[in-house]
Amino acid sequence: MSSSDIFIGETIGTAILILLGGGVCAAVTLKASKARNAGWLAIAFGWGFAVMTGAYISTPLSGAHLNPAVTVGIAIKDGEWGNVPTYFAGQILGAMIGAVLVWIAYYGHFQAHLTDPEIVGAPGTQDTPAKAVEAQEKGAGPVLGVFSTGPEIRNVVQNLATEIIGTFVLLLAILTQGLNDEGNGLGTLGALITAFVVVSIGLSLGGPTGYAINPVRDLGPRIVHALLPLPNKGGSDWSYAWVPVVGPLIGGAIAGGVYNVAFA
Amino acid sequence: MSSSDIFIGETIGTAILILLGGGVCAAVTLKASKARNAGWLAIAFGWGFAVMTGAYISTPLSGAHLNPAVTVGIAIKDGEWGNVPTYFAGQILGAMIGAVLVWIAYYGHFQAHLTDPEIVGAPGTQDTPAKAVEAQEKGAGPVLGVFSTGPEIRNVVQNLATEIIGTFVLLLAILTQGLNDEGNGLGTLGALITAFVVVSIGLSLGGPTGYAINPVRDLGPRIVHALLPLPNKGGSDWSYAWVPVVGPLIGGAIAGGVYNVAFA
Amino acid sequence: MSSSDIFIGETIGTAILILLGGGVCAAVTLKASKARNAGWLAIAFGWGFAVMTGAYISTPLSGAHLNPAVTVGIAIKDGEWGNVPTYFAGQILGAMIGAVLVWIAYYGHFQAHLTDPEIVGAPGTQDTPAKAVEAQEKGAGPVLGVFSTGPEIRNVVQNLATEIIGTFVLLLAILTQGLNDEGNGLGTLGALITAFVVVSIGLSLGGPTGYAINPVRDLGPRIVHALLPLPNKGGSDWSYAWVPVVGPLIGGAIAGGVYNVAFA
Amino acid sequence: MSSSDIFIGETIGTAILILLGGGVCAAVTLKASKARNAGWLAIAFGWGFAVMTGAYISTPLSGAHLNPAVTVGIAIKDGEWGNVPTYFAGQILGAMIGAVLVWIAYYGHFQAHLTDPEIVGAPGTQDTPAKAVEAQEKGAGPVLGVFSTGPEIRNVVQNLATEIIGTFVLLLAILTQGLNDEGNGLGTLGALITAFVVVSIGLSLGGPTGYAINPVRDLGPRIVHALLPLPNKGGSDWSYAWVPVVGPLIGGAIAGGVYNVAFA
Repeated sequence: MSSSDIFIGETIGTAILILLGGGVCAAVTLKASKARNAGWLAIAFGWGFAVMTGAYISTPLSGAHLNPAVTVGIAIKDGEWGNVPTYFAGQILGAMIGAVLVWIAYYGHFQAHLTDPEIVGAPGTQDTPAKAVEAQEKGAGPVLGVFSTGPEIRNVVQNLATEIIGTFVLLLAILTQGLNDEGNGLGTLGALITAFVVVSIGLSLGGPTGYAINPVRDLGPRIVHALLPLPNKGGSDWSYAWVPVVGPLIGGAIAGGVYNVAFA
Repeated sequence: MSSSDIFIGETIGTAILILLGGGVCAAVTLKASKARNAGWLAIAFGWGFAVMTGAYISTPLSGAHLNPAVTVGIAIKDGEWGNVPTYFAGQILGAMIGAVLVWIAYYGHFQAHLTDPEIVGAPGTQDTPAKAVEAQEKGAGPVLGVFSTGPEIRNVVQNLATEIIGTFVLLLAILTQGLNDEGNGLGTLGALITAFVVVSIGLSLGGPTGYAINPVRDLGPRIVHALLPLPNKGGSDWSYAWVPVVGPLIGGAIAGGVYNVAFA
Repeated sequence: MSSSDIFIGETIGTAILILLGGGVCAAVTLKASKARNAGWLAIAFGWGFAVMTGAYISTPLSGAHLNPAVTVGIAIKDGEWGNVPTYFAGQILGAMIGAVLVWIAYYGHFQAHLTDPEIVGAPGTQDTPAKAVEAQEKGAGPVLGVFSTGPEIRNVVQNLATEIIGTFVLLLAILTQGLNDEGNGLGTLGALITAFVVVSIGLSLGGPTGYAINPVRDLGPRIVHALLPLPNKGGSDWSYAWVPVVGPLIGGAIAGGVYNVAFA
Repeated sequence: MSSSDIFIGETIGTAILILLGGGVCAAVTLKASKARNAGWLAIAFGWGFAVMTGAYISTPLSGAHLNPAVTVGIAIKDGEWGNVPTYFAGQILGAMIGAVLVWIAYYGHFQAHLTDPEIVGAPGTQDTPAKAVEAQEKGAGPVLGVFSTGPEIRNVVQNLATEIIGTFVLLLAILTQGLNDEGNGLGTLGALITAFVVVSIGLSLGGPTGYAINPVRDLGPRIVHALLPLPNKGGSDWSYAWVPVVGPLIGGAIAGGVYNVAFA
């Protein structure tokens, strides 16, 4: 794979991953969406198929990492780090493009949600403390949740542990794909297995932190959230932003090490 | 593939696609359906498997486009436009047949829904403006929704953008199938991958407009809606009808172009 | 395949199909089930995977028809009718065994449901007409629904049409499997495609009649319902019993004919 | 396969199975989980994909039994019992590790759930009998349910029968995999078929007992529940513990016998 194929593949693939992943959060959350309140099963399947679609499309160009934790895990397994910066660059760019596309596809819904008096309070009343909390809980908070993850119980140690565990499972499934597919040419269906592994992690380990399990999945859209001209959008929760970056990288690295010890 | 195989394959395949796709909308919407209120996840999986079933059945005859946007994207990729009119003809005919079959399968449910006083108001009261609005919202509107798509927030630019983005993702997945399957003969499972891509688009990008992502999926049933003798059916919303035709065609064409630049 | 393999395969496969299919109806319906009120999506996926599991297990022995409509469609396609009686015999026996297994697995739940005063009324009060209707609607009716299908709107022409259409789609997908798999040895994954086709039919065409789309799926358990010593079970609705037998057989025969004309 | 590969593979695979399986129960049950009340469909898909992920990862090392009932069924089929103790040892160790990982990932949620006055009553009031029952029903009971199964209607004969039937279906599907895959190298996709078989058993046969269908899936986490320092956790229901051990072993053995008679 050439450097330009890797960069283009990761950019396109990660953009589609975030478009569809952020999209399902918008669909289930925002006012006037047909899918509003479709529930956690919709979120989990939505992200799983988002990964599948992005991976399927980018496999021919870049091998479909779409996730720095995947890139790190594979680099540890293969002992090759030369292309890592190119993968990272495409991934973060793609994640930001994907978040912008979610904003375009749901443009009027973001506006409607963040200016609805029933959701954020009547204009002029949002400065009282109680109204501000309500506006945050029902308005700005869910809108940030379309872009980035956040924990239900803020406990850095647990939050980090949950992200490490989730990413470890993801990476072990991806790294063993080569062993599973050996000699029977089923490589292209790896995207399907990976999709359901991601659904599984979402259903089972998504409850506490919303399962970033991918540094750029969280960071890219968070940057876009900070830049976009959304009304009443509130802050971008930067104090939490390092957890879904560091946790997945640790989880990916551990999985790479475990693979080399137990499977190689 | 002969012209007659293409025409028959597209007619049968698109008829089954619309039968099952319109069917799930009827099942979730209409009075006295066992699946009533099954929610958006049912809609998204229903349409995804509708595409899979129609595609699987028609692949041996026509290669299973079932969608003018797919035909356009593939024509741009391959540079061959000779069979395009045959594909289009089978697709629009099939879409209309499928919509008629939905009407047959749910005949009594359409009647019951559109004449239920609790849904459309008591006879003779529907001429007051308030009752007319309610009848539209709960009766004629959802019934039109069994046939055609409509936006929750009517904004032509956003609606068009959403349809373009959704169709672009669909087409990129379909066009890269050839690269993914190269040399391992997994072609027939493409229908499965495509099914989950469509579920993904439904879950993630269906919130604003109901994701036509296929000109005949919207236009064919809309024509049938205009022709069928349904009581109290109201108008067929022709002012919106061009959006789900033009948007998907643009999205398919862009995907064809991107494919030729980045993947070919 | 020997006659005994066909008979044993169809008996085991159909028993598993009905055990899992009837099982999901019991799970979603009966008092004190952990899955109670899990909704139509659970029903549709439950039946789809029931077909997959039964088909996967019986494929090596009998080719996994599990459904007289499938046997008829394949006989029309292949022009071979010699084994049809053996298939039918295994299918009806298996369906009855499966229904008995559902009764065993949910034994206490059937008892609890049919004797719960909140569901069927207090003892001794069920003879007043209003209480009898309520007991039927909430007690005996749903219990019969664990065994056999019934229409929401009783209209023989529509009910028959819905069953014909649903079975036609099922059979066309099964009959074209040979064309799709030609030369790439994916036969064993046909069970997966078939599973999702059945989910699709359930989601999209199950609303009016509960989609028997298989004569023995309805008739076998109905016979068992008539024989089992369930308290307050009410009648077995024999007046409707011919519809889910005749409709699927017609649908299967039409699909066989269409296949021979358009695909062969 | 070497003994150490079997032991390591079963340990890792079963740990991931229980992490993801117990995880979905925690996600759907515990206070402040984003997936709370996601329903039975989430549980069933969560466990199905948990099996798939654990199986996919451990297949290259141990062939992915992850379940003593599977080990027994395969031993009966193959007539080879030499590695059975190694499989059992890895499975029970892995199940306990998985349960500890669930506790880590949901640490704060267990604490919050078991000390919430709205769930378990205000401190000091839990000693009145009524409050104790409520605390059990809403607090300690569901938390035990994250670890181990329990019947809705306590009837040893029915509970045992349900577990036997469910495990019998699982094993028959696993044992026939070899026949289905013969000569087409689809072995690695067996994990996918198995996933949906497990979803099916969960949807259809999980209503009465919560479908252990695996001795260590129930026993391993129950031991961990007894050892963990959870506040107000109550007892570990040891009187029921033998049922989900004995039932699955019987079901697996019967399936092995039926396979040898009907399929071999």
